[in-house]
Amino acid sequence: MKIGILTIGNELTSGKTQDRNSSFIARNLYRLGWQILAMLSVGDDDAAIKDGLAFLMERAEGIIVTGGLGPTTDDITTSAIARAFDLPLVTDEAALQNIKERMAGYNLIWTDNNAKQALFPAGAAKIVNRAGTAWGFSLKRNGKIIVVMPGVPSEAEKMLLGEVIPLFRRELADTTEVATRIIKLTCISESAVDQALAAAPFAELGVTVGFYPRFPELEVVLTARDTSQDKALQKISLAEAEVVKKLAQHIFGYDQETLEGVVAALLSSRKLTLALAESCTGGLIADRLTDVPGSSALLERGLVTYSDVSKEELLLVPPAIIRQYGAVSRETAILMAEGVRKTARTDLGLSVTGIAGPDGATAGKPVGTVFIALADGTKTLCRPFSFPWDRRGIKVMSSQWALIMLKNYVTGD
Amino acid sequence: MKIGILTIGNELTSGKTQDRNSSFIARNLYRLGWQILAMLSVGDDDAAIKDGLAFLMERAEGIIVTGGLGPTTDDITTSAIARAFDLPLVTDEAALQNIKERMAGYNLIWTDNNAKQALFPAGAAKIVNRAGTAWGFSLKRNGKIIVVMPGVPSEAEKMLLGEVIPLFRRELADTTEVATRIIKLTCISESAVDQALAAAPFAELGVTVGFYPRFPELEVVLTARDTSQDKALQKISLAEAEVVKKLAQHIFGYDQETLEGVVAALLSSRKLTLALAESCTGGLIADRLTDVPGSSALLERGLVTYSDVSKEELLLVPPAIIRQYGAVSRETAILMAEGVRKTARTDLGLSVTGIAGPDGATAGKPVGTVFIALADGTKTLCRPFSFPWDRRGIKVMSSQWALIMLKNYVTGD
Repeated sequence: MKIGILTIGNELTSGKTQDRNSSFIARNLYRLGWQILAMLSVGDDDAAIKDGLAFLMERAEGIIVTGGLGPTTDDITTSAIARAFDLPLVTDEAALQNIKERMAGYNLIWTDNNAKQALFPAGAAKIVNRAGTAWGFSLKRNGKIIVVMPGVPSEAEKMLLGEVIPLFRRELADTTEVATRIIKLTCISESAVDQALAAAPFAELGVTVGFYPRFPELEVVLTARDTSQDKALQKISLAEAEVVKKLAQHIFGYDQETLEGVVAALLSSRKLTLALAESCTGGLIADRLTDVPGSSALLERGLVTYSDVSKEELLLVPPAIIRQYGAVSRETAILMAEGVRKTARTDLGLSVTGIAGPDGATAGKPVGTVFIALADGTKTLCRPFSFPWDRRGIKVMSSQWALIMLKNYVTGD
Repeated sequence: MKIGILTIGNELTSGKTQDRNSSFIARNLYRLGWQILAMLSVGDDDAAIKDGLAFLMERAEGIIVTGGLGPTTDDITTSAIARAFDLPLVTDEAALQNIKERMAGYNLIWTDNNAKQALFPAGAAKIVNRAGTAWGFSLKRNGKIIVVMPGVPSEAEKMLLGEVIPLFRRELADTTEVATRIIKLTCISESAVDQALAAAPFAELGVTVGFYPRFPELEVVLTARDTSQDKALQKISLAEAEVVKKLAQHIFGYDQETLEGVVAALLSSRKLTLALAESCTGGLIADRLTDVPGSSALLERGLVTYSDVSKEELLLVPPAIIRQYGAVSRETAILMAEGVRKTARTDLGLSVTGIAGPDGATAGKPVGTVFIALADGTKTLCRPFSFPWDRRGIKVMSSQWALIMLKNYVTGD
């Protein structure tokens, strides 16, 4: 199916807000094997909307519009589309009632401009908004489907996945079931993933594969169709096994999972407690782990030991070791991990020390030199790294590897 | 001037990459008072490029194209545009030489497909790329200007500001000078800023004003034109004074400055050292401050004291205080700030304790309750907050307020 996307709003054409909807819609339709012909943004302007709609109507079979469905005077999408197709606007009583109830639920005072959100072009089919008051609608004109959704990304995303894609599939009389799985990897380049999977029999399995790099991570997205969800999922499982076979140690999660969420869940499930000693990551690992609700049960403390004195006082690293090997060294990293574990009386101690730059490089230790150590009271694992990125990139990749080392420790990978 | 933007790339229409260029271009042209008619994205496809170009040529006076200027076979923008205007492609020897030299400088091996990047439509004016090998070019057809830039955002942004905007202004015979200043605010809503500045005489001063919310910050952008840069800057200064008069305590910086960078520079200039005791922010303040190069000189240590025990051991908070008032209380916050200052022997101690949710609320202390304290050895300032956001939002706004309190402490605001 050929799709055109039209996003509407002065906040887009003034550069005030970046359009997130087009990319989200494109990604989710592309996975289904549909083609995005054009993504067009115009302002809240009657003529521009009509013009943009005409451009897409000439070329696409389905058109998805977002934005301009709110109650204020600059929200003109519904009336502009009605005018473009010469349709009157009609109040939908059920929608009006729903909007009133939803506003009362939010303790918002009803003002008459909200009634605008219950107006739809005659003949349009309403599309429920499960996350807000701006309902969407769909129209069929000249054999083409036009779908209109609100501009707020959280509302548009829910409506696209929950209502609009099923609607298009009904219109296409597409009764196949589609299954998708996102496999999340990290600490590996796109070209290495490409190479590792080059010989995998995805086509024979009837599964399409897409790579989506999102530094510092990478998503491998598998999509399959079949006559039932079970059969489509079966194809996905076979394809997933191929990916796992080649790239197991780089996979940290699936679908909506985050690396910090996976690590926190693994530690919790084994009832393992953790203490952190961060130097060059400066608290980023603690920040990420504490983004996970309930992480207070596993993260006993995190120490950002930026100074040598703090490494000595809080982590019990002997000054002689720092003098002899340097604060950025395998020896110091190991003692930091062991020291924080001991003083915090946790199961695990994890440390990071490195040179994030731009200053601080010494002979034999360029910017990007990082040591990460993990102590469990029996043994201490330490890995050296040499990262090519800038200060923030080095911090981010160091936190990424630290979390991967924790994950692999628990899973035994 | 009426502008159309055309971004080209299969990575855009497949949703693999989000288009950042359109928004950046729009923002910078809008500030000059130019109008963005449409922002259109199409794939690396000859017919789609021609079609999109025709749509914009009919409507705009100037067209800015980005993407598809690389050396690989899917980069077809130059040839598609040449074909669209019936122009032959010609190799530019100077550009060829420059590309060869730049690649040698990067230690990259020359392959013949790179010569493609020295091909331009006959009659096009080259536009230098100061950040990469893909040069841009401009054409005049039917009285309209078409500018083509590379798709890599860092290269496109540099080329837009350094070459393309001056080129358009020359074509418009616009000899006025334009001055812009970005005033950065935080911990205030867009509507409060709008209200505070409603009566300011910007129009009389000949200055246009735009608001750009970027949670948790907000930019007020002032733009002025005059016959010289000095005169334009003079207008900006008068307008800026109006903003400062109304909103001084919310302003933290200008143009490219970050809040953490401003705070680090202020502390450094006064030779003040800092120690942090973070509970609900979980290391985010330390992470932000350590993003600033050289921050190791001022941040002696940062302690993420998530557990009560760590507050007692590391910050010397008496267990009786935590029992009586709770870990999230004014009393505990103050003792945390004083404790970390004392044990780290720094000039300042800053603490944050709060309930980031979703769990952890108690009677009288709902999710979003946060206390931030700042101790200097003489007095300890403590501010209570009640934030409405989710877990990440509460962490981010707490870090924002903590940094603002540090800034205001040093500047005396």
